Amino acid sequence: MKLGCCYYPEHWPEEMWAEDARRMAEMGLSLVRIGEFAWSRIEPEPGQLHWEWLDRAIETLSDAGLKIILGTPTATPPKWLVDTMPNMVAIDEQGKPRGFGSRRHYCFSHGGYRQECRRIATAMAKRYGTHPAVTAWQTDNEFGCHDTVLSFSEAAAARFRIWLHARYGTPDALNRAWGNVFWSMEYRSFDEVDPPNLTVTEANPAHWLDYRRFASDEVVSFNREQVDIIRQHSPDRDITHNFMGFFTEFDHHDVGRDLDIATWDSYPLGFLEQFWFGDANKRDYMRQGHPDIAAFHHDLYRGCSGGRWGVMEQQPGPVNWARFNPAPLPGMVALWTMEAFAHGAEFTSYFRWRQAPFAQEQMHAGLLRPDSEEAEAADEVRIAARKIAELGPQQMAQAPVALVFSYEAAWVCGIQPQGASFRYLELVYEWYSALRRLGLDVDIVSAGASLDGYKIVLAPTLPIISDEFVEELRELDCPVLIGPRSGSKTPSFTIPDDLAPGGLRAFLPLTVSRVESIRDGCTHRGDGFEITRWLEHIESELEPEIALECGRGIVFANNNYRYCAGWPDGSLLTSLIEQMGSEAGIETMRLPKGLRIRRTATHQFVFNYGLEPVQFAGTGDTIAPASFVVTPLTT
Amino acid sequence: MKLGCCYYPEHWPEEMWAEDARRMAEMGLSLVRIGEFAWSRIEPEPGQLHWEWLDRAIETLSDAGLKIILGTPTATPPKWLVDTMPNMVAIDEQGKPRGFGSRRHYCFSHGGYRQECRRIATAMAKRYGTHPAVTAWQTDNEFGCHDTVLSFSEAAAARFRIWLHARYGTPDALNRAWGNVFWSMEYRSFDEVDPPNLTVTEANPAHWLDYRRFASDEVVSFNREQVDIIRQHSPDRDITHNFMGFFTEFDHHDVGRDLDIATWDSYPLGFLEQFWFGDANKRDYMRQGHPDIAAFHHDLYRGCSGGRWGVMEQQPGPVNWARFNPAPLPGMVALWTMEAFAHGAEFTSYFRWRQAPFAQEQMHAGLLRPDSEEAEAADEVRIAARKIAELGPQQMAQAPVALVFSYEAAWVCGIQPQGASFRYLELVYEWYSALRRLGLDVDIVSAGASLDGYKIVLAPTLPIISDEFVEELRELDCPVLIGPRSGSKTPSFTIPDDLAPGGLRAFLPLTVSRVESIRDGCTHRGDGFEITRWLEHIESELEPEIALECGRGIVFANNNYRYCAGWPDGSLLTSLIEQMGSEAGIETMRLPKGLRIRRTATHQFVFNYGLEPVQFAGTGDTIAPASFVVTPLTT
Amino acid sequence: MKLGCCYYPEHWPEEMWAEDARRMAEMGLSLVRIGEFAWSRIEPEPGQLHWEWLDRAIETLSDAGLKIILGTPTATPPKWLVDTMPNMVAIDEQGKPRGFGSRRHYCFSHGGYRQECRRIATAMAKRYGTHPAVTAWQTDNEFGCHDTVLSFSEAAAARFRIWLHARYGTPDALNRAWGNVFWSMEYRSFDEVDPPNLTVTEANPAHWLDYRRFASDEVVSFNREQVDIIRQHSPDRDITHNFMGFFTEFDHHDVGRDLDIATWDSYPLGFLEQFWFGDANKRDYMRQGHPDIAAFHHDLYRGCSGGRWGVMEQQPGPVNWARFNPAPLPGMVALWTMEAFAHGAEFTSYFRWRQAPFAQEQMHAGLLRPDSEEAEAADEVRIAARKIAELGPQQMAQAPVALVFSYEAAWVCGIQPQGASFRYLELVYEWYSALRRLGLDVDIVSAGASLDGYKIVLAPTLPIISDEFVEELRELDCPVLIGPRSGSKTPSFTIPDDLAPGGLRAFLPLTVSRVESIRDGCTHRGDGFEITRWLEHIESELEPEIALECGRGIVFANNNYRYCAGWPDGSLLTSLIEQMGSEAGIETMRLPKGLRIRRTATHQFVFNYGLEPVQFAGTGDTIAPASFVVTPLTT
Repeated sequence: MKLGCCYYPEHWPEEMWAEDARRMAEMGLSLVRIGEFAWSRIEPEPGQLHWEWLDRAIETLSDAGLKIILGTPTATPPKWLVDTMPNMVAIDEQGKPRGFGSRRHYCFSHGGYRQECRRIATAMAKRYGTHPAVTAWQTDNEFGCHDTVLSFSEAAAARFRIWLHARYGTPDALNRAWGNVFWSMEYRSFDEVDPPNLTVTEANPAHWLDYRRFASDEVVSFNREQVDIIRQHSPDRDITHNFMGFFTEFDHHDVGRDLDIATWDSYPLGFLEQFWFGDANKRDYMRQGHPDIAAFHHDLYRGCSGGRWGVMEQQPGPVNWARFNPAPLPGMVALWTMEAFAHGAEFTSYFRWRQAPFAQEQMHAGLLRPDSEEAEAADEVRIAARKIAELGPQQMAQAPVALVFSYEAAWVCGIQPQGASFRYLELVYEWYSALRRLGLDVDIVSAGASLDGYKIVLAPTLPIISDEFVEELRELDCPVLIGPRSGSKTPSFTIPDDLAPGGLRAFLPLTVSRVESIRDGCTHRGDGFEITRWLEHIESELEPEIALECGRGIVFANNNYRYCAGWPDGSLLTSLIEQMGSEAGIETMRLPKGLRIRRTATHQFVFNYGLEPVQFAGTGDTIAPASFVVTPLTT
Repeated sequence: MKLGCCYYPEHWPEEMWAEDARRMAEMGLSLVRIGEFAWSRIEPEPGQLHWEWLDRAIETLSDAGLKIILGTPTATPPKWLVDTMPNMVAIDEQGKPRGFGSRRHYCFSHGGYRQECRRIATAMAKRYGTHPAVTAWQTDNEFGCHDTVLSFSEAAAARFRIWLHARYGTPDALNRAWGNVFWSMEYRSFDEVDPPNLTVTEANPAHWLDYRRFASDEVVSFNREQVDIIRQHSPDRDITHNFMGFFTEFDHHDVGRDLDIATWDSYPLGFLEQFWFGDANKRDYMRQGHPDIAAFHHDLYRGCSGGRWGVMEQQPGPVNWARFNPAPLPGMVALWTMEAFAHGAEFTSYFRWRQAPFAQEQMHAGLLRPDSEEAEAADEVRIAARKIAELGPQQMAQAPVALVFSYEAAWVCGIQPQGASFRYLELVYEWYSALRRLGLDVDIVSAGASLDGYKIVLAPTLPIISDEFVEELRELDCPVLIGPRSGSKTPSFTIPDDLAPGGLRAFLPLTVSRVESIRDGCTHRGDGFEITRWLEHIESELEPEIALECGRGIVFANNNYRYCAGWPDGSLLTSLIEQMGSEAGIETMRLPKGLRIRRTATHQFVFNYGLEPVQFAGTGDTIAPASFVVTPLTT
Repeated sequence: MKLGCCYYPEHWPEEMWAEDARRMAEMGLSLVRIGEFAWSRIEPEPGQLHWEWLDRAIETLSDAGLKIILGTPTATPPKWLVDTMPNMVAIDEQGKPRGFGSRRHYCFSHGGYRQECRRIATAMAKRYGTHPAVTAWQTDNEFGCHDTVLSFSEAAAARFRIWLHARYGTPDALNRAWGNVFWSMEYRSFDEVDPPNLTVTEANPAHWLDYRRFASDEVVSFNREQVDIIRQHSPDRDITHNFMGFFTEFDHHDVGRDLDIATWDSYPLGFLEQFWFGDANKRDYMRQGHPDIAAFHHDLYRGCSGGRWGVMEQQPGPVNWARFNPAPLPGMVALWTMEAFAHGAEFTSYFRWRQAPFAQEQMHAGLLRPDSEEAEAADEVRIAARKIAELGPQQMAQAPVALVFSYEAAWVCGIQPQGASFRYLELVYEWYSALRRLGLDVDIVSAGASLDGYKIVLAPTLPIISDEFVEELRELDCPVLIGPRSGSKTPSFTIPDDLAPGGLRAFLPLTVSRVESIRDGCTHRGDGFEITRWLEHIESELEPEIALECGRGIVFANNNYRYCAGWPDGSLLTSLIEQMGSEAGIETMRLPKGLRIRRTATHQFVFNYGLEPVQFAGTGDTIAPASFVVTPLTT
């Protein structure tokens, strides 16, 4: 695994560049990402392209032996460009334009802006496409950041109508698919269809789902336009995009298919603070991040572009954007780096080289402080670099467990939670975390992926499931666990004629006759576990494998398939996974709090995310907090 | 009492209709409401009326012996209609249009839309007005649902100015009435007056009160236009409108006066979850609803149209619109049906016959599942139907207790709460619930109603009180309890010259010299009770009947009148009601938790809303949870 | 100290005026503020000035011996004026116009409205400028109330561009100062710059800071226009403006420099309820206000206009605008009056004479009830008047302690809190309160003030600190305590080249190498104290004077200077202040809960804000709740 950093030569006096480059190399870095926010310096006046400074920056970095990931600057169009086409900005759900003054002030559907992006990407790809130091490209930056996937502009509405026409052919077909007869919502032509915002009460969920699919497709095609240009002018370079954490607004599997390598931006402390983790976790892991945050995304994005992935931005210290921004515990930057290594990252790039003293992110730490002194992370980078060199390249083995992830499932659950606490990402994360607490390696795969070779397969929920994927599941002979709401919707966001679980009935002979969502604080007790949030009533000739105290069946098993008819707690998940592990002949172990394991083809990595030293029974090692141990696999 | 259901023939293939009708009749239903969302099927293109399908639907239902309640489809104008007059939509308080894509996307004040409504209502009334199966009409659907009473459109502003002109005659009179001199808010002409939204800080409360009165009058006149048309073309049919729960945005007494029969939509579980009931109630009654929710509305709406009322939509299972949507406890659908019966409903109609598999309400249960199998409620409907038949028609006796309810009072308290926790509906509900926990039957009456024949009269609060109603109260010789803030405002939302209680001083010789609102968690203790939220300082020569520990008087009695100078808790209410009961010679009994009683002229119904079996001392019966017992009255 | 009241002759029949005036004088009042909301009566039609009624009102009041503070009516332009220039209203941060119907519906930057204000102020000053009864003027009313300082109108944008041009000269200089290269935010001309609202994510903090400075300057120049007019036409009268509590949206030191006397509006109960004070304080001081609220503002505003100050509006009973509005404890109105007296107020004016029975503030108590009977406060006013007369005029001595306050610091912390709980006002208030709990008198001074003669100086935080003020601090030889984040920003909102504490390093040889914000509920323990919210990592050759249990230094001392590298709790503040007091030879005493002291040059005032009688060790007096004791100073 290579190490790198994000660098902004345009932020610093040119006389600092060479020394910066020398120090990067000295610190163990060999990659540097540049350019992604530099449009106003590349083209300070319309049509006047100033490449000279960027030429020199690339030469200087290259001279120090660094390879370059070059970003297209389309996330930050300059003011003059916005002023030439003011309607290029996105319109928010409330109908307000999202103006200039920060970043991502564009609508994915605006034809004029797309043309400008092709123009600047072409110019950049032509100039640097064959530069020997340029090893890879990044398109744009963090698609969707600051809630920018959905736009409700005229441009978006117009393209949505075309998209609908292509999908449905006739307004009648659309009306039937969506059930528009319901509240006289029928359209006579596609021209009558608007985006689903600003309705009196909720719009048709089918309307929302198609709008989300459309918006995701817009991101895909926006990205593909740049990918096509770069492929043409920059042969043999990798193309990537830096995805974000806990973010499902577009289908990353779809975008990932057009990339050579998926990358993501890893900020464990900010994510812990900003997401659903409760007060206890936010306190106990305040300076480490919850132990599964980074791993979850490593495993998720590894499944997005054919297995190749990396960390484009790695948190090196306190960030500036969470409600509270503590510093990582000493050791955590090295630990996070090694966790990425153990999961097969091709590189980890720290954001950023030097903390900027100005503008929006001036409180975001870097490897250097603003005064160019080394920040705390610098030495941890050196430690990680040495350790990585010592261990040598790691091959990934297929994990024993596949966890099925679907962006469409996230949209369905978000559009129609039915209970306020039914959150897709939280459900999947809980299942993932239960696996990892039992010491299991996991591949997170899309809902269309091949499941060949897995020993255990879990799908926390898949409301819409294709016939093909039902077939894929049906051919498995390993233990399979399917979660609630699976098969509960058709692709048109309607209830299947034969009710849930729809096509899954091929191997799960049961019917969900009714569902209940349960308020926070109310639970249904079973023997040593609780069901919260969601409970289904099952009609089946199967005897429940596990039932609630009241007698209602909660887990139903048929051959190698299990269905969980509610939102399981950690105890139920643990015992189900142990049971499946035992059936599959896979060893599980209940790890102490804060401890996690990851195996490559040759090594076992044990990480302690906790605040106390912990003894790992597997090796007898006592592992200090914020520390790790690597041992060769004896198999 | 008849049973019925809400049915949408346009949602189902025509070949299913006859079998549906047959099954309805078999289940014990004799009524079916149809048509209220079908505009896009009745008039798929402008001016092209397609009655044939509706003719056939009506014949099919009629052939099975069902009587029909026909709804005008004006709650869901089709897209083509909105596109012909885009400014027909309401404008929300923030100034945003409330667009097409769900329902109720119209402004009550838009002349063009009113004309369209008259057109479609006339056509419908002409076609079906004398059909023998059509037994009743419903105007529109749930006026005000999704916060749609108030609109801040140009159309509304224009009609508001006319309304003000009619009320005040001259701008000077308006300025004086509102006190517009206060912040130089004086108008020189009615044309200068705008709706009260989008002001820098709160607008004049008198401005808001008149805007609410105007908006309520707009609902009244909108409804009346349809009523007049239907009366003309459909003689001898009942006309109704389906009101909602815990909803005070327009004056239901005013609308009710134009109807033959008031109906409402009863969703006890959703209402429990969505309203002010605390965590303990929301947990203990999660699957039953709080025991007074349905009864409160039965008693309220019975007072709206001369005593005739019904339940147009009865929850038959989980709904889709509350934060959490659990299933009713087995037995509750029958229990709710019997509670309506015991309160004198002419019919109870379940919403809906079959759960729709598509669109916004696909997660809303029906009597049938989407796959046409019977849902849990079906058998409970049969049980209720049999029990109702067995008991025969029930006559209502006048209740011993009258509770005075005023929509205007709700508006005044909402416009000027003065303390964040002063909520009108909650106050009235607490007083109602205290009566019912003591086994009393209650009539909820308007603030202009005759109080003849009542044994106890309570008015939780009446900030504005007419001279006529003061006279009505003054002539009573039964115990009367008046709550805080009563008589504290003139009709122009000013403080009376002689302060509160204004005209009530005719029989309550006291003056409210000062009021305090009290923060949540702070209380004022009395002997066995607490005052929270609101406390008044009273000047009077009367000795307080009940005082706080600090000596401040809280209840003042003069002859048969009592005034409560604060927000009483359940203990104080209970002892006051017991005292009044004793004075009036009415028996009260402290019912066990969850138990409630309702008497008709001939029978006593006892309902157990709790989770445990309870013995009812009155009869010795032990009543199972979610169950009821009916016994003939021995008087 | 004089006593007065706010009076609105236009609200009452003219025949009441003389009797009102007589009763004011009888009650001990000698001042009356009038006119500030009367534009619609002064100019009921455009250009038609009706002075007669105001002439008569002034004569009537004057005849009773009252002196008059006359307000310009520019906070409430009439409807006809707004209709002649609809774009004079402010635009809120969401882009919505803030319309007519309450007050303060104007944009400070609108040239047309400014002209109207000059016109009406000139006319008023010419007519009454030399009237012998007119002793002072108030400009407008409560600048900024209802969040009205910032406007995002076209008018504001245009003047902002001019302001930027004047500050930076060239777009390049602005781009460099703000660091606009960061996200390609560079401008080619000032015309390209917009206000910082409606950006996709946060705008550049430098952009916000300059917008806040600009907006503050707009208030200053708006006020100065009226001041200049009044000075021209009304020689020898004092000019004031009534500031608000806990309000930092514009620089009150800047506005104060143009005034003769600073006044403020004191509502201790409303402020307690509306601001950050926790549940325990809100309960314990519900009817008294937290003991430092009034004193804090007295000491703050005394520093705004060269030492002259007063209370323009004093709460006399329950108000109408907080979430909950209880009544003051009997005695509190007198106590608040005496606290103002003890702090050197030239007058205290109660808001308002008689409670209005109409419009927005009808629930706001006055000295009289709406029925003209005396309210509870009236007798307390008499008590205070007698006590003040008895004690005679009080001279203020310089306080031993200076606390440095900066509006710019409030803006910086608000724009970039970095941790959600870092609130400037709360930090300063906690430091102030710690001083006062130790019995110390405090002067709150601006960050440019002379510090000559102080025995202890504290600056809770000063992120931006001028070279001149660094010099001022450096010349001190008394104990100085500097709080976290001081010196952390340049005037352009960037990090200093040598990091924090920037220029303070002249006497504090240390570097803040990293900062952390800490989530609520997490603390860092020291010996008997805790650090919450904010923690800095310090590099220094100094040994920490006080360290956390983990060893990290938290207080660093160098000669007479101390730096506190975190958010200290009350215990740490107390021990630091005691230590500094001991070094400075100033006595401190730990006062019992609720007790506070204030000394004039000749007397010591002891106030009991608590609910229980307390013995004051200093004199042996036992002081009843809501009561005070005054003793001559024996020095």
